[in-house]
Parts: sequence; structure tokens; C-alpha cells
Amino acid sequence: MSEKKKAIVLLSGGIDSSTCCAFARRDHFEILAMSFSYGQRHSVELDSARKVASFFRAEEHRIVEIDLRAFGGSSLTAPVDVPKGRSIDGEIPNTYVPARNTIFLSYALGWAEVSGCRDIYTGVNSVDYSGYPDCRPEFIHSFQCMANLATKAAVEGNYLTIHTPLISLTKAQIIRKGIEMGVDYSLTHSCYDPSPLGEACGSCDSCLIRKIGFQEAGVKDPTNYMSKAAAE
Amino acid sequence: MSEKKKAIVLLSGGIDSSTCCAFARRDHFEILAMSFSYGQRHSVELDSARKVASFFRAEEHRIVEIDLRAFGGSSLTAPVDVPKGRSIDGEIPNTYVPARNTIFLSYALGWAEVSGCRDIYTGVNSVDYSGYPDCRPEFIHSFQCMANLATKAAVEGNYLTIHTPLISLTKAQIIRKGIEMGVDYSLTHSCYDPSPLGEACGSCDSCLIRKIGFQEAGVKDPTNYMSKAAAE
Repeated sequence: MSEKKKAIVLLSGGIDSSTCCAFARRDHFEILAMSFSYGQRHSVELDSARKVASFFRAEEHRIVEIDLRAFGGSSLTAPVDVPKGRSIDGEIPNTYVPARNTIFLSYALGWAEVSGCRDIYTGVNSVDYSGYPDCRPEFIHSFQCMANLATKAAVEGNYLTIHTPLISLTKAQIIRKGIEMGVDYSLTHSCYDPSPLGEACGSCDSCLIRKIGFQEAGVKDPTNYMSKAAAE
Repeated sequence: MSEKKKAIVLLSGGIDSSTCCAFARRDHFEILAMSFSYGQRHSVELDSARKVASFFRAEEHRIVEIDLRAFGGSSLTAPVDVPKGRSIDGEIPNTYVPARNTIFLSYALGWAEVSGCRDIYTGVNSVDYSGYPDCRPEFIHSFQCMANLATKAAVEGNYLTIHTPLISLTKAQIIRKGIEMGVDYSLTHSCYDPSPLGEACGSCDSCLIRKIGFQEAGVKDPTNYMSKAAAE
């Protein structure tokens, strides 16, 4: 039996990256899951990442410690309020983390080279993407071009492909597709500002996008929201 | 008096990055120096980086902790012997660190965005470059293109320039140029495999390139090499 091809999957533990794992499995890859601990306020998402990696029987799951607080500049890592209840418009919110996807993909590039992978999966999405510039297809394309000049592997002709199976799907389409492929969304976490117990706030951008996604998909959201709990 | 423009300078503490600082000063930039502590065996170079940043009166010097050992694969970070006394040929040596410059530049990109810089200086060099793919002009150009799609700053029209003043200079030309601009090379460190006291081994790739550079420049190398000390 020949060894299965491996792919690095960037796994935050949210809906998108978890669905992305399912796509990598569908494409017959063994999963090398990579998550980041970067001083985020919502580190409970790393627990979700662990559960999802285990659910998909990832061959390995690495959690890389990086210190994005070294340059601050985002409410996800610095002491600034997370915006609540705002409309999801075209403006880039303060939850944007400078260079985040660039840094995450750069680490994935390093691990890909060392482990002999030619494939990286990322759940970036340019539809419901809260206006982050580093989730656009032109950014991903450009990163791939750069990556294929950056490494010894590429010099030797082993080119890298960055897969973005979710990039043009709405959240509802992602959820429907994920359920088709057997994703257990009760393992996932979306909230930017959870309670100390890990409950979702229900009103940050990420919770709003999740709620609308499940509604539009016509699927029950398994999340236990704080506001919902308080109302009951 | 208007505030001086600032530039991020990637500063390892070696000849190239130190000379790069001098170029940034010549170009009338205030320096924001950025170094990396990445489990390198030659962390004595960080002491040199501190001295050089101070010599050039950097407005700030940040040393970012990153864990490249997360993927190993290089003799600079993993327990593999550093090659000694080999000829400097076209082959990529095992001191190559996967995705290193990509990761370093990605962090610089993040700091640039937060601090409002539009300029990054890096001392990469494609002449005496030991065969690292991420030191080639086409890599740098490609990184710049990617960076200008990655950030909120770029979306708003504040494009980033990556300056590589050393890219086509020989080591001898770099040293001559640096001395013209007042660089104190006694502060710099090159060796990949120094003694516990920080003395240079004199025989790794980096020492060999340094020695030849000073010879060809017709300038005395201020380095105290172990082998030299042992021979005396």
C-alpha cells in the first residue's frame, strides 16, 4: 500500500477551518493540522481545534506559539473592545490582525517543506469575510506565487498548492457542504469574545455571521450562546 | 520640524543587516530594528544585533520570539552538524532554514502596518548567499507584491516597499560601502557555530564568506577567530 499524501490544514477550530479539514479528507489527504496560539482573547478556540483535529484523525496537530502582541493593533490581541451588534458592512473592523494570514501561511510553508507536503488547505473566505484583505483570492494567489520562489523544495520542482475550497462559498453553503461531508459543528467555536467558560457571546461579528449562516442553511446551530442562556 | 520617516530594518547582527542599517540611515529613515530569537545555535548574534541597533540609535529594537524548531529541518535549529570547511558552491547547504525569510518578512509586515511604516530594509544578498532561495531578487519582488495585497494599509493605498540595498553586491563591496558609511564591524557577528564565549569558529560557511569578504575588501577583519587564537 502506498503512503497517503499529506496536506497541512490551518485549523482555528471555527466553522471554516473545520469544514476545510473535511475537504482535505475528501481529497484523500492525511491531515497535518496546524493551529496558532497568538495571545488571542478567544483561546478556547484552540480546544475546539484539538477536538476537530482528533475528529478527523489528523496524523499530527501542532500548536505554534507566536506573539502577535509584539505589534498589537487588533482588538483580538490588544486591550480594545470587540465590536458588538454592528452591521456586517464593507469596512475593515478592529478585529483585523495585521499580517495574520501571511504569518500563518508562512509557518505552514515551513512545515510543508520539512514534511514533504505540497499542499496547504486554508478556510479563508471572501464572501462573509468581515472585510479582511488577507482573505481575498488575489492575496492567496500572490502568496502561492511567492511561496514557490521561497523554498528549496520549489527550487527542486516540488511546487506548492494552496487550496481554498471555501473561498467563494457563503457561510450557509459552507455549513451545508460540511454537513454533507459529516462535520460535527458542535465541536467548533466561532465567538471572538467568549465567557470564561467558553460560551459564545452571540453578538460579535463572528457570532452574528455564524448565526445567520446556520439560519440560512436551515440547520440548527449547536452553539450555546450566553444571551440565549440568559433569556431562558 | 516634521517627524522623520521610519523604516523597519531586519537586523540579525551580521555584516549584511548591519550595513543595511547604515543604508536606511543614509536614506534618512529612523530605524525600527527587528530581530528574531528562533532557537538558533548562534544566539550570540542577538547581542551583536543589540549593539548595532544602539550604534545606529534605533528608535526601537524588538526581538521577537519565534519557534522555528516547530518544524526543525535545519542545522541552525536542529541537532545536526554545521558543515565546516566546504567550498561555497551552488548547492543549498543544511544551514538553510525553511521559510525563514518569509516568516521574518511577514512579522516585519505586521509591525510596519501597525507603526505606519511603508518601508522595510533587509540585507538579503544573492551573490554570496550560500544558495538560499529566499535571498533572490525574484523572491523579494514576489513578497512585496503579496504584501501589497495582504494589509489594510495597502487596501487604503499605503503601499510597502522592501529595500534590498545589498542584493547585488559582493561581500567585499558590502564591507567597503559599510566602512564608507561608518559601520563598526567589530560589533557584528557572523559565525554559525561559535564557542560558548561567542568566538567565531572560522570554518563554517558564514565565517569563510566573512573572511574572504574582508580580504577582498582589503580591510582588516576585527573578528577574533577560535582557530586563529588556537594557532597563536
